[in-house]
Order: sequence, then C-alpha cells, then structure tokens
Amino acid sequence: MAKEKSTEGITAKKSENFSEWYSQVIEKADIVDIRYDVKGFIVIKPWGTMIIEKMYSLYEKELQKLGHKPCIFPVVIPEKNFKKESSHVKGFTPEVFWLEKVQGEDRIALRPTSETAFYQMYSLWIRGHRDLPLKLYQRANIFRYETKATRPLIRGREFYWIETHDCFASKKQAEMQVQEDIKTTEKIMHQKFGIPFLPMKRPMWDKFAGAEYTIGSDVIMPDGKLIQQPSTHLLGQNFSKAFNIKFKDENEKEEFVWQTCYGPAISRILASVISTHGDDKGLILPFCISPIQIIIIPIYSKENKEKILSESKKIKENLLSIGLNTEIDESEKRPGEKYYEWELKGVPLRIELGEKELKEKKFTLFERDIMKKQTVKFSDLKNLIKIGGEFDRRIKEKADKFAKDQIVYCKTKQELKKAIEDKKIAKVDFCSIEKSGEKCAEYIEKEIGAEIRGVMGNIKEIPKGNCVICGRKADEVVYIGKSY
Amino acid sequence: MAKEKSTEGITAKKSENFSEWYSQVIEKADIVDIRYDVKGFIVIKPWGTMIIEKMYSLYEKELQKLGHKPCIFPVVIPEKNFKKESSHVKGFTPEVFWLEKVQGEDRIALRPTSETAFYQMYSLWIRGHRDLPLKLYQRANIFRYETKATRPLIRGREFYWIETHDCFASKKQAEMQVQEDIKTTEKIMHQKFGIPFLPMKRPMWDKFAGAEYTIGSDVIMPDGKLIQQPSTHLLGQNFSKAFNIKFKDENEKEEFVWQTCYGPAISRILASVISTHGDDKGLILPFCISPIQIIIIPIYSKENKEKILSESKKIKENLLSIGLNTEIDESEKRPGEKYYEWELKGVPLRIELGEKELKEKKFTLFERDIMKKQTVKFSDLKNLIKIGGEFDRRIKEKADKFAKDQIVYCKTKQELKKAIEDKKIAKVDFCSIEKSGEKCAEYIEKEIGAEIRGVMGNIKEIPKGNCVICGRKADEVVYIGKSY
Repeated sequence: MAKEKSTEGITAKKSENFSEWYSQVIEKADIVDIRYDVKGFIVIKPWGTMIIEKMYSLYEKELQKLGHKPCIFPVVIPEKNFKKESSHVKGFTPEVFWLEKVQGEDRIALRPTSETAFYQMYSLWIRGHRDLPLKLYQRANIFRYETKATRPLIRGREFYWIETHDCFASKKQAEMQVQEDIKTTEKIMHQKFGIPFLPMKRPMWDKFAGAEYTIGSDVIMPDGKLIQQPSTHLLGQNFSKAFNIKFKDENEKEEFVWQTCYGPAISRILASVISTHGDDKGLILPFCISPIQIIIIPIYSKENKEKILSESKKIKENLLSIGLNTEIDESEKRPGEKYYEWELKGVPLRIELGEKELKEKKFTLFERDIMKKQTVKFSDLKNLIKIGGEFDRRIKEKADKFAKDQIVYCKTKQELKKAIEDKKIAKVDFCSIEKSGEKCAEYIEKEIGAEIRGVMGNIKEIPKGNCVICGRKADEVVYIGKSY
Repeated sequence: MAKEKSTEGITAKKSENFSEWYSQVIEKADIVDIRYDVKGFIVIKPWGTMIIEKMYSLYEKELQKLGHKPCIFPVVIPEKNFKKESSHVKGFTPEVFWLEKVQGEDRIALRPTSETAFYQMYSLWIRGHRDLPLKLYQRANIFRYETKATRPLIRGREFYWIETHDCFASKKQAEMQVQEDIKTTEKIMHQKFGIPFLPMKRPMWDKFAGAEYTIGSDVIMPDGKLIQQPSTHLLGQNFSKAFNIKFKDENEKEEFVWQTCYGPAISRILASVISTHGDDKGLILPFCISPIQIIIIPIYSKENKEKILSESKKIKENLLSIGLNTEIDESEKRPGEKYYEWELKGVPLRIELGEKELKEKKFTLFERDIMKKQTVKFSDLKNLIKIGGEFDRRIKEKADKFAKDQIVYCKTKQELKKAIEDKKIAKVDFCSIEKSGEKCAEYIEKEIGAEIRGVMGNIKEIPKGNCVICGRKADEVVYIGKSY
C-alpha cells in the first residue's frame, strides 16, 4: 500500500494550477474524502479532524477568555422563527434544508445559522440589566442548500463553525464587541494560524441578512481570489425587536438589547491554512495546530533496532513532558517513504535518529517549511519549543508578504482593470459604500468582473482623490477583487 | 434576580418524587432549558455544556489511547444506504427524520446512527489486511423521530454521542473489541463518572438492528428503573456483506471484514450522573468532570475586601497551577446565597476565605457530597488533588452500594413478582435468551410488567436451578426490571 502511494505524489504545481493542487493535497494528505454519496457533503478524515479539533480548541479558549460561555442549541429551527426578522428570512430562505413535515407539527428547518434559534431563548433569559452582557457561543454543524458548485471545505452543504451571539445594554458596547471580534480573528486566525486578512466592512448592499453592518475577514488565496473568513455583524436592535428581547435598565425602563454575532467557520479556515502555507510537496501545518508537531523517524538495521527504538521512545517521552505532541513512525516502510508521507501531511518538525546520531548524542532536525536540516543535541530538547515558535513566525511572515504584495493602489479605471487582470486586489478611492455607490459597484462587476469587498473595518483610511468610477468626491477607500 | 432564585430552591425530594426532582434540578442548576419551540428538542445551557465537554474529553482521550482515531461524517445519509442492510432498515426507518426531497437528488435522512454512512466509505478505504484493524470514531449529534414522550437528556429527538466503528480481520478480534468496549465503559463511566452498570448481553429479540449480538450497559436509576447507557454491538459480517467491505488476507484471499460499533451517548450519561449523585440540594458533580472543581467564596467587609480578594486570587492561581479548575465568586451576593447556588450546581469543593482564615493561614474547605467542613492550611493546597480523588471515590462507592442493594436474586415467580413490585432488579434463572425463551419473556412482560434485560456480557453466570417461568432447564441467569 505504502509503495503504491509514494509513486502517486502531488502532480500539480501550486503556482501553476492552484485548483488542481488543492484537490490533490486535501485528498492525498488525508484531510477529506469527497466520495460520500450525497451531493455537497464530504467526509473529514482523521488527519483533517485532528487539525480541526486543535483549531477549535484555540478558538474556544480565546472566546472563553473574553467572557463567552459555551452552549448547545438544537440543529432545527421552526419556520415561524425565520419569519420574525424580515430581511433575515429573505436572505436565508433559498439556502434552507427543510425536514419532511410531520403531521400536527410545525415545519422545521436545519439551521443555516442560529440567530433565530438563540434569540427565541434570549427573550426568555434576559430580564434586567444584570443579565447583560450575555455572551454565548456554540460549536456547531451548519447546513446550507448550496446550488452553486461546492468545493471541499470552501463551500459545502454542511460545515463546522463557531457562532457567538452577544447582547448588550447599549449600541456602543455592541460596536466595541464587533471590534473585539476583529481582534479575536487577528489573534487566532492571523497570529496563531498564520493567515493574514482584510477586515472588510461590507458595502450596504452586501451585508448579512438582518444586520446593521457586517465586517467580513477577507483572505487572499494563492490564485488571487478572496475568500470570506470569520464575519462579525452588528445586528443592532433588528432581531431584539423581532424577538422581543427586552431588559429593564437601572431606572426600570424597558429597552431592547443591542446584539452582535460572529462566525468563524473552522472547516473553511482550514481551507485557508492548507492553501496559504502548503507547497508542492503537500501541507505545511502551523506548529500550534499540527496534531503531530514532531515526528521521529528511527533509522535502524536488524542489529541496532532495539537500541534506536528505545532512544526514540526516550526522546518522545521527554518531548511529551514539555508539552510537544510527538510520535514515532515505527511502521515497516523505508525512512525515505516515511519522510515523504509526513512531509505530505505537513508535520512541521522531523527528528531523524540513527546510529550516527546516537553516538554523537545529537539528532538531525528537519524543518518542513524551509526543507532544511540541522543537528540538535539530545540535551537541548527544550529548544524545540522555540524552534516551533519560530516555525510559525516564519510561515506567517511569508503569508503576510504574499498578501501585502497582492494589494495594489490604483488611481484610475485603467489601473484597476489591469490589477484585476493581473489577479491582484485593487485598492481604490470610491464614492460611497452606502446606497449611492451601488451604481458604481455594478459597473465594476459588469465591466471589470470584480467585486467591491468593502472598506477597512478597524481603521478609517482617507481617500486621496475622487471616485475612480464616477469621479464624484470619494468618501471611502475600497478593496476590489474576485472572490470565491 | 439572585434573591428571587434563592427562594425558589428544589421543592421535590429525590427519594419521594424522583421524576419531579429531576425536572427541577436540571432546570434550576442551569443544565438545560426545555422551552425550545420544537417538540423533543432542548437547549443545553452553559453549565450543562461545560460538563458535557469534560465528559467528551475523558471519553475521547481513552478511545484514542486504545487506537481509535476521530473523523467527521455528514449528518445526512442517502435512503439507498439504509436499504442495504435489511434488518437495520426495518429497525430504524420508523425513527428517521427525512429531508424534503430536492428535485433531481436522492431522498436523504438525518442520521439516527451512522453505520450506513461509515460503511459506504469503508468499502472504499479497506483493501488489504494492512488496513486492518480500522478503528474510527466521531462525536456527533444524532436524530431520532421519537413518538414516545421525551425526557430531557434521557430521550430526545436530538442527542450528543460518540460512535465508534471498527473493522477486523477475524471474528475473534471483533469479539475482543466488544470486551474492550465494556472495559472502556467501566473505566470511564464507572471509574471516572461514578456510574455502576450491568453489561447486559441482550436477548436475541432485543438486539440492535443489524447486529449478531448487543451488549447494553444498564444503569439503575434512583426510581429503580433501568436506563440503557453505552451499548456495543458485534455486527459480524452483516454490514460488510451488505456494503461489500472486503480485504485481501495474507494469502491474497478476499474476505469480508468483521465489525463492531460502540455508542456512548454523552448527553444521556449526563442524565445518569445527575440522577445518581444528586441530592435534595441539587447536583453533585464528580470532581473529574465538574467545570469548576473548587469555588472560592471570599467573605469580606468594606474594610478588608481588597486583602481578602487578593489572597483569594493567590490561592486560585496556585490551584490552577496544579491543574485544578478554580473560580472565585466575586459577585455582589451574600456568602450564603453563593453557597446555595454552587451547592445547587454541584461544585465538589468550596473554599471559604474570611478574616479569621487569613489570620490563621488556614481556609475552610466544604465538601459538597457529605456537606462537611474542615480546615486546610494554605501551605497544604496540593492536598486538594487527593481530596478531589477521595471525593470521586466516595460518591462512586455510594452509587455502587445503591446498585448492589437493588439487585435481588429470586428463586420463584412469586419472589420475582415481589421484587418488581418493590422496584428492584430481579436476577433469576431462565431458560434461554435465544428464540426459544421468547415466550417466557412475553409472559414476564404481560404478567409482571417487566423486561428481561439480558445476561452478564463479560462473565458467564451459572444458573443454580430451572427457569422460574417455564420450569425447563435454565441456560442463563438473567436480569429483569422496568426500564426507561
């Protein structure tokens, strides 16, 4: 079996045919199997599942640190709940899977998102100002009846996310939560997973169904297209009015709560992790989320097998004791085959341990991203914590540089056209992301084949000139690109 | 709010009206909210969710240690998969939620269990004997269209479980896996969560749809009724033949694999944890799964508030550093109210810290199960690890004693009748749990209103006399009781 596999390799180059490379790498690195017998649904294999678990764990820990508590809501939502917030029902109804109606019971849907599940209960739970802020989240599987072509982990009919649903006593607090959510994305997705993003405040015509405004984190994929990662929404009082979520303030006056929600889709972020860091040999996983951080490959003959394995185990135990997930590959494959397999699966560090290493009390350490070897003394094992940290810093910096180089400031329509043709992200001065700018946006879509993704959601960028499309005074600096 | 709550208390006695006590305790201890607007579906609140997460974590760690790897399968199963194993489709079809059919696509169901999802893929994944054993599991939400009355965490239309699906090269290996599964239940549910159980090999007329035999773990609830907890099934080759899961053995001969599956329902086990350990003041959580293991209640006046809080924080940090989940209740409630609340929520240990404690450098430690106080020196903090372990041993022993006392060996039909009337579990000599015993079982159901739950699945008990019902030679010692 192993031999069969090693002749297979990844035959597509990431830089030449990203789409084919992606399809091959997720299959060959045992992330997913797309052969499940229902359209748009896939199986996540053990290696993919273990990465996802690590990602969930880092995300949940951070959310809990910021005062969110976990809960579990049903996967089903009654139809009448959807109908309560009118723009929400309009936005989501085409994407809903419905259950076959059971006689005598209401029609129910599989959740495409859970606002209308949570907020029904929030109206029962919130009474006074002491119940606020209320900050809950759940990790959940989510269902969308996608009619467009699906792509594994990127767009599917079932995906795995976290959704937070927060309530506050004032709009200001809710707006601060939106900023906190952007910082959470920065802290986890960028600083930990190494995925840079643009926190895009969406144009009004492109916000979440039911929100006052939406900030979507756009990540630039290797093919130059943007993919939306965690988005955070200021729901304002739209839902609290629809679901009657009121509290008595300190003066006993009844008010509707102010709400936000935030939705990092872990399975989709994994798609960005794979795409951003991987190379032609396969995955490169961040040290902080790799299910195996260090793989030990013992190199032995019949004569010294026992000795080498015993030393490997000692090293493994020592690494485990300082918190590093370490495994020994004791299978019967040749060392070269093992190297190949763990490089494909993206394990950040590899220890090679043979007779020579044993004698010198130094092992060979291989770093997956730069494909370089160095020697490390047995007595310096704890250095691997630092080396792991440097690994993550290095792949993040590489991703940052790529993202930065993709963004081009364009002063004219022609420059914008060229940037989009070159598969870049264009940054341009633009009239408005309110209703009045929609015509210019339509022009860009039709004539240039790209989308206005929004303006920076955490800082205000000041335009230098007029709108590149209509020539009116520019209120905003917008980012334009093609998207998934 | 707090005051309102403290006057509410639990008004039912566990020993007098268990059902009412259970309903009150799960609501008032913030485990669930049953007011969700779809029949049979409930919301699990943060305290309940955090307990469930701890339970999952212990279970998954053990399964991984035993060679299981996690994966994630879709929530939907195509109708045609159900139809492949004939007794499975018969057994589960009445309990299935179907999705509204989408034009041009097959009819799909929400998984009531995932054999028919996994095994479709297993037929693609397994080729040779080197692919075996294959041991995978997933944590998943599961759906059953229950028509009987639902009870929160006990019987619902959605629940949260782990399911393992294992494949082997021989029947013997599969049978050993069934025994390993029983040991896993023993190690986690009994040794960790403190819930004793009877590993009941079910009569042939009561096995899992599609299995050769089923071993269900029966737990005795405080009302004397049995509830089925994790069950493990020897599927034999029923599914591998239906799904064409074959491997080439070492002689290149094609064989069907031998299969087992195991399903601990975490949300249902939580129902047993609550029911078994709780008392009239509320929950009593095992130390190993309580989201907060130690709650610190600072007792202060205006004058010494800062000093007491600062010492509380020091103790908290020290306890966290030795791996004990500790929180300080800094809310504005009175200490008595805080005691009440954390007793209701079942936190095992409470530290009371006031002026006197500060002076003597000893704090007051309260143990939730025995409701007793002792003093512990500040310098003896690490003793709390031991005290936590003793706590779990104590509640387990109490549960063991209760279970043991419930089981009555009955030599005659009259004794059996009396035992069932007394809400006991009867242990009797019985003709057979094969087809030939079904008539006697029907008699017991009709005339005595109880069920044969099975024979011990991990040891062979030898009957001493003849069948208490028909008088024929007894092959088995069976356990009889009422059940949920």
